[in-house]
Amino acid sequence: MKINGVAYRSIWLSDDGHSVDIIEQTRLPHEFFIMTMRTLEDAAQAIRAMKVRGAPLIGATAAYGVALAMHADASDAALDAAIGVLGATRPTAVNLGWALARMRATLVPLPPAKRVDAAYQESAAICDEDVAICESIGRNGLPLIEGVAKKKPAGEPVNILTHCNAGWIATVDWGTALAPIYMAHDAGVNVHVWVDETRPRNQGAALTAWELGGHGVPHTLIVDNAGGHLMQRGQVDLCIVGTDRVAANGDVANKIGTYLKALAAFDNDVPFYVALPGPTIDFSIAGGADIPIEERDGGEVLRVHGLGTDGALASVQVAPIGTAVANPGFDITPARLVTALITDRGICSATQPGLAALFPERAGG
Amino acid sequence: MKINGVAYRSIWLSDDGHSVDIIEQTRLPHEFFIMTMRTLEDAAQAIRAMKVRGAPLIGATAAYGVALAMHADASDAALDAAIGVLGATRPTAVNLGWALARMRATLVPLPPAKRVDAAYQESAAICDEDVAICESIGRNGLPLIEGVAKKKPAGEPVNILTHCNAGWIATVDWGTALAPIYMAHDAGVNVHVWVDETRPRNQGAALTAWELGGHGVPHTLIVDNAGGHLMQRGQVDLCIVGTDRVAANGDVANKIGTYLKALAAFDNDVPFYVALPGPTIDFSIAGGADIPIEERDGGEVLRVHGLGTDGALASVQVAPIGTAVANPGFDITPARLVTALITDRGICSATQPGLAALFPERAGG
Repeated sequence: MKINGVAYRSIWLSDDGHSVDIIEQTRLPHEFFIMTMRTLEDAAQAIRAMKVRGAPLIGATAAYGVALAMHADASDAALDAAIGVLGATRPTAVNLGWALARMRATLVPLPPAKRVDAAYQESAAICDEDVAICESIGRNGLPLIEGVAKKKPAGEPVNILTHCNAGWIATVDWGTALAPIYMAHDAGVNVHVWVDETRPRNQGAALTAWELGGHGVPHTLIVDNAGGHLMQRGQVDLCIVGTDRVAANGDVANKIGTYLKALAAFDNDVPFYVALPGPTIDFSIAGGADIPIEERDGGEVLRVHGLGTDGALASVQVAPIGTAVANPGFDITPARLVTALITDRGICSATQPGLAALFPERAGG
Repeated sequence: MKINGVAYRSIWLSDDGHSVDIIEQTRLPHEFFIMTMRTLEDAAQAIRAMKVRGAPLIGATAAYGVALAMHADASDAALDAAIGVLGATRPTAVNLGWALARMRATLVPLPPAKRVDAAYQESAAICDEDVAICESIGRNGLPLIEGVAKKKPAGEPVNILTHCNAGWIATVDWGTALAPIYMAHDAGVNVHVWVDETRPRNQGAALTAWELGGHGVPHTLIVDNAGGHLMQRGQVDLCIVGTDRVAANGDVANKIGTYLKALAAFDNDVPFYVALPGPTIDFSIAGGADIPIEERDGGEVLRVHGLGTDGALASVQVAPIGTAVANPGFDITPARLVTALITDRGICSATQPGLAALFPERAGG
């Protein structure tokens, strides 16, 4: 997608042909800084410090981290060490393990002399495939937005609410929840996005608002409390969110607060869509109640980060010092509240039969 | 209520017998500063700058503002001027107009020489009556909490979720939503409060957490996104919130985000109570759709205030500069989602007949 008119991906090969560039996401939205990763440790540190985030981008960064390691030393020992270091950066990210396993399978059979080129080629393939998957999600979701647009009076935008950041900077390009929105915007559909702030980490305010603004998609920032009211007043035509994991029955785990928006959408007959790449479906988990919910550090709630009045990055404490905090990172939206799932293979109902029809090879018997 | 063992009200006569002390609420929770108001302008400025907030406390402060004016000049002209100045501080606050009308009615018939004492007496009466009303709300709500406590296994607290700040520092003492909680705590009931942060102004994180902590009531701060998840996991026994206005049919206007919590409570069979003094009911408004919703300044969303890392009050910008913002201040919780209303006259259903049974003299025919 574009940043002020210039097309970017979230990760790309540097001009020197072996270093790898990323957008340093912890500085967004206040500073746009391109960081060049030159070593395995640069890549590991980028993942660890959340300079890159979003499962697909973490996977792509890990792949390139292996390539950077091979560039320095293509021995078996170096390959094992690189996979070990990268695998320990964010233990819970599914794409991380998947990308590393794929790199290992590609490189182990090769003689060291051939590993460098193969590692860069495989990393590029992982990136290109992710772009293709997200583009498919966008193409499959586009008719949903176009359908609403056709029913709107001339000049009125299609109002879409999203929560957190499931945009192009969480993937290599396009994003998941935002892919249909970018595609609609690029196709000339008049879209407007309500951007949930998404406390505690403010990915909506910091990242979604930034990337929509960079690409030129009209949007308005709201606090997480406001979406229900907007739906009551008819100011939301549809919701699209991403997901961290979908259970076999269609229950959706996503950023904390997603469930509240789904309830409000249901209460006001607003369609609520969840966009995802196929691998996000976990057929081994029967329902949402079995999905473990990460309890995150309370400091995320107590301190808010942003740009200080002096122009430097800063943080403020919002509660009395010593206040007890609970900080569940995700919640479960029951399948009954989900209008449909938008996947790279098409749209389906958030049900076991719906998922099985699109992914028969994985749904089991 | 108590602040670290010492009983306070939110407003009181100073030791000199004519100045008036308040807790400077814009500095909470990071600084506890008692401000002495010595003049009409001090009182007007305190209301205007939100050093006091909460409808009942604004009314009490306005009353004392008139008393301070009379102390300086008890003429008819001074009385008119004082009421004019104070009335313009927060035009939408119902209690403000009510308190000023009451002061005028009390003082106009009196000769100037008798107005000073009468003004202080009437201000004190307004405060005492507010305390009595809130205490009644607490007494009426207490059995709801005690009822839950009796069914809990020994040692397990009654978990109560609240939104925003409807506590003692929004009134003269006790509060509305928090009154039953303070009363239960003081009666030895094991209560624990989930405190919604309440973006954008963070009254939960800054004020509710502060006052519960000061009085010794166990509590845990959560982001506004988290309450639904806690209810799904059975970690909330009941919700109690305050309200800015209740329509004749029982629809409730309250801080933005209240509706989302009511939806989650309904979806999880968690009782959802709204606490209020009788005057908050507006029998002239048929239903919630007719209650105007204030659109507040977008800066509240873009900038978060708190304590900087250097120990000084500071703020940070959380979104890209220039981001468009919508900031509705309140939302409407439909009566169908409200389990019951807790008033100073007792508990009633959130329905026209329920309200009319408790307030027959106001409900009309």
